[in-house]
Amino acid sequence: MSFDYLNALQKKPTSRTPVWIMRQAGRYLPEYRATRKRAGDFMSLCKSPDFACEVTLQPLDRFDLDAAILFSDILTIPDAMGLGLYFSEGEGPRFKKKISNAIDITNLPRPNIGEELSYVNDAVSQIKKALNGRVPLIGFTGSPWTLATYMVEGGSSKNFSMVKGLMYEDPKHMHLLLDKLADSVIDYLDGQVQAGAESLMVFDTWGGLLNTESYENFSLRYMQKIVEGIKSKHQDSVPITLFTKGGGMWVEKIAATGCDAIGLDWTIELGDAQNRVGSKVALQGNLDPCVLYASPDRIREEAHKVLSQFTGNTGHVFNLGHGISPDVDPEHLKVLIDCVHEFRGQV
Amino acid sequence: MSFDYLNALQKKPTSRTPVWIMRQAGRYLPEYRATRKRAGDFMSLCKSPDFACEVTLQPLDRFDLDAAILFSDILTIPDAMGLGLYFSEGEGPRFKKKISNAIDITNLPRPNIGEELSYVNDAVSQIKKALNGRVPLIGFTGSPWTLATYMVEGGSSKNFSMVKGLMYEDPKHMHLLLDKLADSVIDYLDGQVQAGAESLMVFDTWGGLLNTESYENFSLRYMQKIVEGIKSKHQDSVPITLFTKGGGMWVEKIAATGCDAIGLDWTIELGDAQNRVGSKVALQGNLDPCVLYASPDRIREEAHKVLSQFTGNTGHVFNLGHGISPDVDPEHLKVLIDCVHEFRGQV
Repeated sequence: MSFDYLNALQKKPTSRTPVWIMRQAGRYLPEYRATRKRAGDFMSLCKSPDFACEVTLQPLDRFDLDAAILFSDILTIPDAMGLGLYFSEGEGPRFKKKISNAIDITNLPRPNIGEELSYVNDAVSQIKKALNGRVPLIGFTGSPWTLATYMVEGGSSKNFSMVKGLMYEDPKHMHLLLDKLADSVIDYLDGQVQAGAESLMVFDTWGGLLNTESYENFSLRYMQKIVEGIKSKHQDSVPITLFTKGGGMWVEKIAATGCDAIGLDWTIELGDAQNRVGSKVALQGNLDPCVLYASPDRIREEAHKVLSQFTGNTGHVFNLGHGISPDVDPEHLKVLIDCVHEFRGQV
Repeated sequence: MSFDYLNALQKKPTSRTPVWIMRQAGRYLPEYRATRKRAGDFMSLCKSPDFACEVTLQPLDRFDLDAAILFSDILTIPDAMGLGLYFSEGEGPRFKKKISNAIDITNLPRPNIGEELSYVNDAVSQIKKALNGRVPLIGFTGSPWTLATYMVEGGSSKNFSMVKGLMYEDPKHMHLLLDKLADSVIDYLDGQVQAGAESLMVFDTWGGLLNTESYENFSLRYMQKIVEGIKSKHQDSVPITLFTKGGGMWVEKIAATGCDAIGLDWTIELGDAQNRVGSKVALQGNLDPCVLYASPDRIREEAHKVLSQFTGNTGHVFNLGHGISPDVDPEHLKVLIDCVHEFRGQV
């Protein structure tokens, strides 16, 4: 097994820069589309440990990746809370029920993760077994704030008017919602670790829509609670990466949560982030996914720019700054991954 | 005439914090919706100086605003270049023709602003006359990068794959496109100044999607060209505000263009921006527009937070961090504007 990914997260020396790709198991791969077709809809794919395991492993057979990531969705917890997650063509995730007011929040149950989300833990166990030590397995969750945006909006949103309206008007109940979510997320991630996940990632897709004060109070605070909850159970044995899209302005604050690594999108320079957080945390990122639309030579050139910004030979996990797009040529991703591994930069 | 708005932009003392609101003439006002209905479609509203004048003045009759802004669209220049702008229900702006490659870019004509965009200059003249010195009039444009995104994508976009693909693959022709746009924008803004605009604003709605290097090369560089072009014709008599949504990380670089003011969205703290740019430029912003969904007391509280962050009694123009949303109660905006004017903060 290559330990480069886990070593980088723990700021230990690595033989080369480890790389994995957000949404590496996904629609840009024809073999994924074939499995998805066999599974039926997206949720059937997520809920079947066999299918989830199959698609998790697909990118590893094509590319020299340093980690696998559980195939699942960030919205499994609200689904288990009874909101009824479904996916409608071209519209993304939707909930049959949404959270509109204080009463909805008060009545929201804490799901029994071991029962209602057993399919996730089963998938983790099965993937772990199938990996057979090839690469480490990453478990993940959506951040409480990000889950709350979908729960209050009923799905994706353009300007997040409902969830932000609720936050500004009734911060007390928004905190209650986020606290409930954080508790469930801790149970959920703990279950994934017990089933075999060796690293955890929290996706805060929508934290970057908040102002600094709201980000600290409504997003970061609950990610910190999760970090503390997991560390109290597993100490430093399972590194945790926090990824707030658009959170480049807040890297010092994110580093102060006690997380092991920060995921960065491409709008912050990797070198700037490194200067600001020092050796406190590892950094993951941060190539613009749109670079993969360009030719191999240009892909290498842009990847080298990112790689060259990082000083030292540990603490960097290469990734895109956001999930890979469905219309990218898989051969272009191969060019990128090989180029990252071949890079011999400043040490 | 209240000079607070122009004084604040020129860092001269003001009697109170001036305020205007992005999209203050817009769909949240019933009187706007009525005029729009009479005009027919959105472009007919923009292209009629009578209608454009009418809706520009509407918010001034309701609210104690410190500036008026020309009613128009940011995409008038590509329309004048022959791309055929239209608006389809629920989809936002679309172009009949789009820019796909080097040949399209090379063949793109430089419009004769005085002819093809005479309706804009006519609107400015008519508004200026109707205002009769009540408040200053702001002219505006989209930034070259922002215009290019719509021209290459053919409209709004989710992940800007086409325009970024072109930028990464063929930077030379992307620069040619941006240079052509910058030249046209200079002509366009100069025309607005000659027709009576007393201040100019450049909306860089999509610059924040770029990484730092690309932002400097493909967005900021061309805004700087515009600043220099206008300053060479009008010196410092017409203050220029540059607004990059999501550009909080780059305020020092924006200030270095020679602009007079920087528009800020809510993701950067106003006090932080002020510390970073010093007294080099004025600052405009930056309340989260979603605050207007909350109750009057909460609106005042959040507005006070923004106002309290700014030190000194000059150089701040209050605004939202983005355009006002169509579903906001106009009475809530009144609460905000009055609260800004009543504020007596740290001096």
